[in-house]
Amino acid sequence: MNFRLLSRMLGVICLLFAVTMLFSLPWAHPVLGWRAQLETRPQAFEWAGFRGLLTSCLVSLVCGCVFTWYGRPAKGQKLFRKEAMATVGLSWMLATLLGALPFVLSGTRHPDGSPISFVDALFESQSGFSTTGATILGELENPVLVPHCILFWRCSTHFLGGLGIVVLLVALLGQGASGKAMMRAEITGPTKDSSYSRMQKTAGVFASIYVLLNLLLAMTYWWLGMSVFDALCHAFSTMATGGFSTYNASLGHFDSPWIDYVTVLFMVLAGSNFGLLLLVSTGRVDRLLKDVEFQVYICIIVVVTAAIVTFGLWSHDFENFFGALRYALFQVVSVLTTTGYGTQDFDRWNNFGRGVLLLIMFVGGCAGSTSGGMKVIRHVMFVKILRHELELTYRPHVVRPLRIGDQIIEDINIRKHILVYVGLVSAIFAFSWLLLITVEPDTQWNAQPQVVGAENQLDHKLLDCASAVIATLHNVGPGLGVVGPTANYAGFSPWSKLWFVFLMMLGRLELFSILVLFIPAFWRKL
Amino acid sequence: MNFRLLSRMLGVICLLFAVTMLFSLPWAHPVLGWRAQLETRPQAFEWAGFRGLLTSCLVSLVCGCVFTWYGRPAKGQKLFRKEAMATVGLSWMLATLLGALPFVLSGTRHPDGSPISFVDALFESQSGFSTTGATILGELENPVLVPHCILFWRCSTHFLGGLGIVVLLVALLGQGASGKAMMRAEITGPTKDSSYSRMQKTAGVFASIYVLLNLLLAMTYWWLGMSVFDALCHAFSTMATGGFSTYNASLGHFDSPWIDYVTVLFMVLAGSNFGLLLLVSTGRVDRLLKDVEFQVYICIIVVVTAAIVTFGLWSHDFENFFGALRYALFQVVSVLTTTGYGTQDFDRWNNFGRGVLLLIMFVGGCAGSTSGGMKVIRHVMFVKILRHELELTYRPHVVRPLRIGDQIIEDINIRKHILVYVGLVSAIFAFSWLLLITVEPDTQWNAQPQVVGAENQLDHKLLDCASAVIATLHNVGPGLGVVGPTANYAGFSPWSKLWFVFLMMLGRLELFSILVLFIPAFWRKL
Repeated sequence: MNFRLLSRMLGVICLLFAVTMLFSLPWAHPVLGWRAQLETRPQAFEWAGFRGLLTSCLVSLVCGCVFTWYGRPAKGQKLFRKEAMATVGLSWMLATLLGALPFVLSGTRHPDGSPISFVDALFESQSGFSTTGATILGELENPVLVPHCILFWRCSTHFLGGLGIVVLLVALLGQGASGKAMMRAEITGPTKDSSYSRMQKTAGVFASIYVLLNLLLAMTYWWLGMSVFDALCHAFSTMATGGFSTYNASLGHFDSPWIDYVTVLFMVLAGSNFGLLLLVSTGRVDRLLKDVEFQVYICIIVVVTAAIVTFGLWSHDFENFFGALRYALFQVVSVLTTTGYGTQDFDRWNNFGRGVLLLIMFVGGCAGSTSGGMKVIRHVMFVKILRHELELTYRPHVVRPLRIGDQIIEDINIRKHILVYVGLVSAIFAFSWLLLITVEPDTQWNAQPQVVGAENQLDHKLLDCASAVIATLHNVGPGLGVVGPTANYAGFSPWSKLWFVFLMMLGRLELFSILVLFIPAFWRKL
Repeated sequence: MNFRLLSRMLGVICLLFAVTMLFSLPWAHPVLGWRAQLETRPQAFEWAGFRGLLTSCLVSLVCGCVFTWYGRPAKGQKLFRKEAMATVGLSWMLATLLGALPFVLSGTRHPDGSPISFVDALFESQSGFSTTGATILGELENPVLVPHCILFWRCSTHFLGGLGIVVLLVALLGQGASGKAMMRAEITGPTKDSSYSRMQKTAGVFASIYVLLNLLLAMTYWWLGMSVFDALCHAFSTMATGGFSTYNASLGHFDSPWIDYVTVLFMVLAGSNFGLLLLVSTGRVDRLLKDVEFQVYICIIVVVTAAIVTFGLWSHDFENFFGALRYALFQVVSVLTTTGYGTQDFDRWNNFGRGVLLLIMFVGGCAGSTSGGMKVIRHVMFVKILRHELELTYRPHVVRPLRIGDQIIEDINIRKHILVYVGLVSAIFAFSWLLLITVEPDTQWNAQPQVVGAENQLDHKLLDCASAVIATLHNVGPGLGVVGPTANYAGFSPWSKLWFVFLMMLGRLELFSILVLFIPAFWRKL
């Protein structure tokens, strides 16, 4: 392991952070930052946020200088597979730590007035970078609890996380086990050349698309009536498929069909393969429409929405057809792309709706997007592999290449990679669930009956914990029960929260880059 | 596909059934069949049971003759892979049909007096043959609802199912995809010769061990105070890891620590590899103790029991330590070996206990036993494979053989088989759960509040359905909530019950032999 090179890379991350934090500072200013309805925001609290951000910025700067100085001799050395994996994993951990500083140093508070703990801050920071959107903040609109500039930083972490993903996708994660095969198979540029320089160039193009889409969406939001502040924050959250909002009622606060439908459109885009969006921008829309993954992705949205509308109207979850369509479509896209915005509390829908939303959390968006989950293409391949394996039981010598659309996947290891990925997700899910029901005390289920008339909330613990694991591992955000769309993760014990932090990171970096860091042999010289 | 050969094999099954049904007939006689406490059992109902069984016996005989006659020209032809797979699957379906006849024809009734439907009978019959032990009969002790000889037939289906498994294990399933590798790897006789004649011989030996253990257990039960009838029925259920009892309170009816501990011992034996039990009977106990799968199996029992005792005493689920040990050990072994007997309602334990029992349903007993589940060895291999795959991400060219204890698994496909199996189980679980929450109406959750004070049972539907899928797919029997140890499957809609019948069959025959029957290409000539 070349630690100097590693240090050099981490230094760059720190400096990048120091710069980004500067962008959140202006929102502490009364003129720029205050929303119309919150003119009473006390300036003293805003200054606490400002100081917190500035201190964090300085800490990042110092860390960046130290890391870069230590890594100084490594200039020009080549990044090998191991260093690449370690860089991805460690820089994500470092980002989580640095990103947590502003929350702690600004004195952000829970609704009961107690300042949030460092674990809470870590959770919020990781939730931001991993574009999960799960929160431990119960009250966002009270200016004496959460400073204004901290709200902006919170959404900025989504932007950084999303940016990190689209860049990592090509520059670094392309070297991960299944990621590599996935990228080769899916992100097909005009030529199939995958040299390093080309990767860097593609990463730049992707980042540009991402930033442009963010700006476009922010302007649309602004045009639809949001303040500049809200427009930017929600654009960051949408394009990163994150889900942080600046209001307690999430995007439901605006209660505008236009904002809902625009958000649906951009969530669908954010959950699509950015490589294909690049092709679309050069006029080749046919490539997107002919892409098997995109077809299945749209198909899932349509079918699940139709089913939820049908069952929902039948169970009187919705008032009328158009309302049903609006809320069901929004919620399905929000959960499938792992954004996690809420316009309606889907936890109060009928059990079919709740169950289906829980299942599509496993699906996620397309490969090469900012969305979480296992990705549509993995499920498509998984089904094809299982069908082939069934055939093999009675025709043991039949050989069939793995075909996706017109393409034949040439990587001979791809079948194993997909199966290993599914196996790992199952194993991590089962283990995390067991861990959670072991370490998590019963207090929050005994304490807060959420549905009128229900007294025995304790029986919901098993399902609620399962949904919390799914929602964090797949970077969705809201789950069922105590982590439902109107609730938050504040009630969990610190140990559980730390595990959620780990799960969000696992899900974000597609398991391998994080898991290897915990294998001692990885750090030894070969 | 050689249909005549297939028909010949099915004919043999039918004739076997006709003979077995005869053994249930004597228990309709007052002297032989009546239990002391049920002397008022009305003779008229007993005769209805007798007539039902006799008619079923005749139907089986006729079917057997027809099938054998049609398959007459096939004598001496060789059984190829396809025919073997089709025989296993179809004979299991035929067994289910024939086994359901006595329940319908005898006029067996639900507690409300209504006769059970054909779907109910199919469920009960499949539950018996697959050694699941899930039931739709709410009241077993009332003589006007369930005739005595039918209770015996019900437990006989366990015996037949268990016998079928140990014979199939060597004779036929050895040809299945993962089964083959598993058998080669695990059922290691004194020599590694796996020719057909040796297989037949081994099957005979296994069947003998199985029958002997049944007799031994029945005599022990009788010696401990059970009637001959109860002793035989419970011995059948225990050794087949089934779980049908002749009492509503399951084995808890006897409330005897001796019976509990003897049952635990025999459940552990029934969940062990019969190949290793054969070696033990020839004096080589060391082979059993040095077997990795057996070690892990015992380890799971000890660790899980200890955890449940600790958490249970802490949550006041048990009165004292010895009671805790007795009930926890019994329940853990009962669930892990997928027997499903109950001496305590584990659904009322704390959430840790409920969750852990739900998880170990996925584990099951050892390969080569009558237990269901995914088998311990698959989990051992699965963990080893995942660890190896993680290493491969940073050392892409490392080659390691799959080692189980001192043995190296030579089959190059074994890794893929294990991963495919895990993937298939996950996929079937997810799909079945989705299907169940879609087709199953909410009535049984709205209707019956099971815990005092709980009103909002509907929120339990998602978890209850998941547990029902797990409990049937892995042939356990009881799950949580509406399918808990004190409840039964009678409340489900016919469509759901049919799906459970399918799941039980899938789980029993380890997926492949049943799934291929639904692929049209399987039936075509190559």
